[in-house]
Amino acid sequence: LNSLSSGLFKMGQPRLFDKSAIQSVIDLPALMKNLEKGLILYSEGHAVIPPIGFLHLNQPPGDVHIKFGYFLEHEYYVIKIASGFYNNPTIGLPSSQGLMLLFKQKTGELEAILLDEGFLTDLRTAIVGAICAKQFAPSALNCIGIVGTGTQARYQLNLLKYATDCRQVLVWGRHPAKVQDFLADPHFSDFSLKAASSLEELGFHCRLIVTATTSSHPLLFSSFIQPGTHITAVGADGKGKQELDPHLLQKADLVIADSLQQCQAFGDLSYVKDLSSIPRLMELGQWLKNKKSLTREKEWITIADLTGVAVADIQIAQDVYKKLSSLDNEGRGH
Amino acid sequence: LNSLSSGLFKMGQPRLFDKSAIQSVIDLPALMKNLEKGLILYSEGHAVIPPIGFLHLNQPPGDVHIKFGYFLEHEYYVIKIASGFYNNPTIGLPSSQGLMLLFKQKTGELEAILLDEGFLTDLRTAIVGAICAKQFAPSALNCIGIVGTGTQARYQLNLLKYATDCRQVLVWGRHPAKVQDFLADPHFSDFSLKAASSLEELGFHCRLIVTATTSSHPLLFSSFIQPGTHITAVGADGKGKQELDPHLLQKADLVIADSLQQCQAFGDLSYVKDLSSIPRLMELGQWLKNKKSLTREKEWITIADLTGVAVADIQIAQDVYKKLSSLDNEGRGH
Repeated sequence: LNSLSSGLFKMGQPRLFDKSAIQSVIDLPALMKNLEKGLILYSEGHAVIPPIGFLHLNQPPGDVHIKFGYFLEHEYYVIKIASGFYNNPTIGLPSSQGLMLLFKQKTGELEAILLDEGFLTDLRTAIVGAICAKQFAPSALNCIGIVGTGTQARYQLNLLKYATDCRQVLVWGRHPAKVQDFLADPHFSDFSLKAASSLEELGFHCRLIVTATTSSHPLLFSSFIQPGTHITAVGADGKGKQELDPHLLQKADLVIADSLQQCQAFGDLSYVKDLSSIPRLMELGQWLKNKKSLTREKEWITIADLTGVAVADIQIAQDVYKKLSSLDNEGRGH
Repeated sequence: LNSLSSGLFKMGQPRLFDKSAIQSVIDLPALMKNLEKGLILYSEGHAVIPPIGFLHLNQPPGDVHIKFGYFLEHEYYVIKIASGFYNNPTIGLPSSQGLMLLFKQKTGELEAILLDEGFLTDLRTAIVGAICAKQFAPSALNCIGIVGTGTQARYQLNLLKYATDCRQVLVWGRHPAKVQDFLADPHFSDFSLKAASSLEELGFHCRLIVTATTSSHPLLFSSFIQPGTHITAVGADGKGKQELDPHLLQKADLVIADSLQQCQAFGDLSYVKDLSSIPRLMELGQWLKNKKSLTREKEWITIADLTGVAVADIQIAQDVYKKLSSLDNEGRGH
């Protein structure tokens, strides 16, 4: 039997890259630009993106997302697996895990394995957050509000360096000890961090707020939010998760969805009963494509509901692999 | 930024195995037994199996299936990617491609990558076919009918050695040249193969028929099929595929589904409007669990509708990885 399928055809082995190799080729400004392009292509219908695969584990709790698809007329299709096992840090492991796979669109052959351990998913989520901050946060910004103290909250703040000059930050988390850890993180030495005593306080002081929690109930209510505020909500990426009160979304002047289909299915927008009550609702890619003819009024409350789109995974996987394979670097890929 | 996520935690690299390593540990009788156990656990509800991910490519045509899930209280969850790019052989590549991934259920860490290039998917599909032949084909069998001449048709016939002593085979395919290739395949030297001039002729002579085509319309009609025949239909594994006339399924005395849910969604059973018209319909796992108290009457027409279940992928991935990792074989896994 073995001989039935071996030896008949000669195949190349896929190229394999580990996290440190992947991290060595990250060029954030270029990635930001390319992710914008990918989001535009997606909103224009130039990508094939089937529904996300979800797998839930219970003991301990873990969520696995399988996101996949391809851009029309590109070379590869991409499957990315990313998981959050939120108890991992208690045993010294990162909560994020995963990998990305590139296959040839024409033959299905596995071209490359990016053993990113969830890094590229965390990164592209934060890059999309930074893209939103650049588009929608007021230019005169006194204070950034970070809601959440986990891995993604840290990535988001880190990437905001590329979107705003503001370095004043209020941080809110459920667990005071985790807030203290966050404040002490040496990666944030550029920032001036303080703990917010409440979400109301954070809302009062911050005109850019990023929520990155695993919450299953609303954290931000419209009464907390001042005119001229932009909120990027990245936590609600699967059924049962929620960070924003539906009334806050309905009160917003502009709501941006990374994917209208996904946000309506399981994002914060999924809790809004009547989407027609939102005066302006569009996909991030639509905004980016038409931004020259669009204006965000100064007093608007704007919200970006980010569920995490496969196009961002496909784009970052392709970009990183292109860089890795352009390196004449036999030792790294094997 | 890179330092944000590197170096903080120490992680083990996943183990990587190529096709030849995987093929070297295949123990077919043991796999048959374990796949039966897996199918029983599935029908008993001891597995978590989300909906399959499908991705279709057009130029050239390719179908990608992502099947995933886990057995409760086992160590790993499994994601398998398998594709059929049916034009590949014209450029010297196998149509089947893919890999299987094992992740720890408790932490989400990637444990192992089985670079099987679709081999384990082809194999487990054929093993489930052999399980059906063993359960449902008449014991006195004069002739096997094989409908289709591709990779899976060959795997099916090869595995039937483990299910029946019959070595007379009629083969039918759309393309006479491909039928001649099949007849000349040196792997079938144990068999006495002949081309069937028509599906009617094949149906007339064969009491065990396996259909393994990519057909999108019915090939077998009830007028072709004699009493006492068992048919295993493995081709219809996604929307738009079909091998059996719905009236044939309705006329059958017993219909077995590998997964009732999948077969109703996109198997040959999905074309049957009223499933209650089938006198006996059950899952393969239910039959296997209760087979001692069940009888297949000699004159019955029985049909197994196989769509390909993730439990078979999970079971074979776990079995193969267990064998690979029990080998004290540093050179092979790296």
